[in-house]
Amino acid sequence: MTKATTPAPQVRGPSDHDVRDQIVDAATEYFSLYGFEKTTVSDLAKAIGFSKAYIYKFFDSKQAIGEVICGNRLHVIMTAVDEAVADVPSAPERLRRLFKTLVEAGSQLFFQDSKLYDIARMSASESWPSAQAYEAHIKELVLQIVRMGREAGDFERKTPLDETVSAIYWVLRPYINPLLLQHNLEKAADAAPQLSNLILRSLAP
Amino acid sequence: MTKATTPAPQVRGPSDHDVRDQIVDAATEYFSLYGFEKTTVSDLAKAIGFSKAYIYKFFDSKQAIGEVICGNRLHVIMTAVDEAVADVPSAPERLRRLFKTLVEAGSQLFFQDSKLYDIARMSASESWPSAQAYEAHIKELVLQIVRMGREAGDFERKTPLDETVSAIYWVLRPYINPLLLQHNLEKAADAAPQLSNLILRSLAP
Repeated sequence: MTKATTPAPQVRGPSDHDVRDQIVDAATEYFSLYGFEKTTVSDLAKAIGFSKAYIYKFFDSKQAIGEVICGNRLHVIMTAVDEAVADVPSAPERLRRLFKTLVEAGSQLFFQDSKLYDIARMSASESWPSAQAYEAHIKELVLQIVRMGREAGDFERKTPLDETVSAIYWVLRPYINPLLLQHNLEKAADAAPQLSNLILRSLAP
Repeated sequence: MTKATTPAPQVRGPSDHDVRDQIVDAATEYFSLYGFEKTTVSDLAKAIGFSKAYIYKFFDSKQAIGEVICGNRLHVIMTAVDEAVADVPSAPERLRRLFKTLVEAGSQLFFQDSKLYDIARMSASESWPSAQAYEAHIKELVLQIVRMGREAGDFERKTPLDETVSAIYWVLRPYINPLLLQHNLEKAADAAPQLSNLILRSLAP
């Protein structure tokens, strides 16, 4: 009922917003079965019962659909990570949880939806906005944790803050970036706690 | 002239050792032009003017030839790394040079001989003996550097030695393993010095 107050170009039928969601949901299911890279918008249109032209009315390209799917998935991981660290009073423990949750959520995406992992790989290799936003979010979380630890006296303050944050991000990156994580999955469970310990030793006051 | 003193199964023509070297040299050149994964021993045999049967007399499979090529290449990197750290009196400086040289040598292999990089990728993904030996060599170097730094009082001694070495290896691994390095090349020059600093902070007594 909010439609009357917004200047919608189309008033008949479902709102544009609903149609976009419908296309994204159907596309997510389709790509999770048949992959993203080797399918076309025509394939997708046929499978989900929309015309290709109708899909193009809402999305410029296959990548634009992939962007939304990717953004949705990364949003799930970001929420999981945010929840894992929220309300944890100690900065060192936040850092451990951040690392652990990132590895778990990334592995889950890889193993449960291996066909959708295509999209994650592409988003990383082509640096899509969703991938950039994800990276920025993780860096921001690291910054908050380091600041918190410095204020509480848990972490050293000699190293410039941006260098500390950036270096920690380099340690995390192989477990965040889908192109790297795919080759790290077997090792991640062993590596993550050891790397958390190493980071925390590097932060010792 | 040493041949008379060794029990060679074939005394006519060049020694087996020479023939093996000849095949490896020719194969290195061939694979560097046409790639490794998509070429066959028949292609190689035709191109280098040996019969397929003759090649199989010396090597069980294409992988066996790739193994030797890979071993040779990794040997070049290991020599570069060994030379970069030898005679450096300070353990922290050795660690920095180790990291820097690994990144440089790996990038060089990738950019100069991108077709041969196929072999490096396969050796890592299938854990060939040459790749295992390389990994073991780097771990041994890290162990020596950490021991040296601990003895000189440059590094802390509280953390168990094997945990320290293993954690440092996890930090280096994305810049050593060809499957990971290929996605890290653009970032490596920025990341390596920051990661060296982070490792050194973690080692502070």
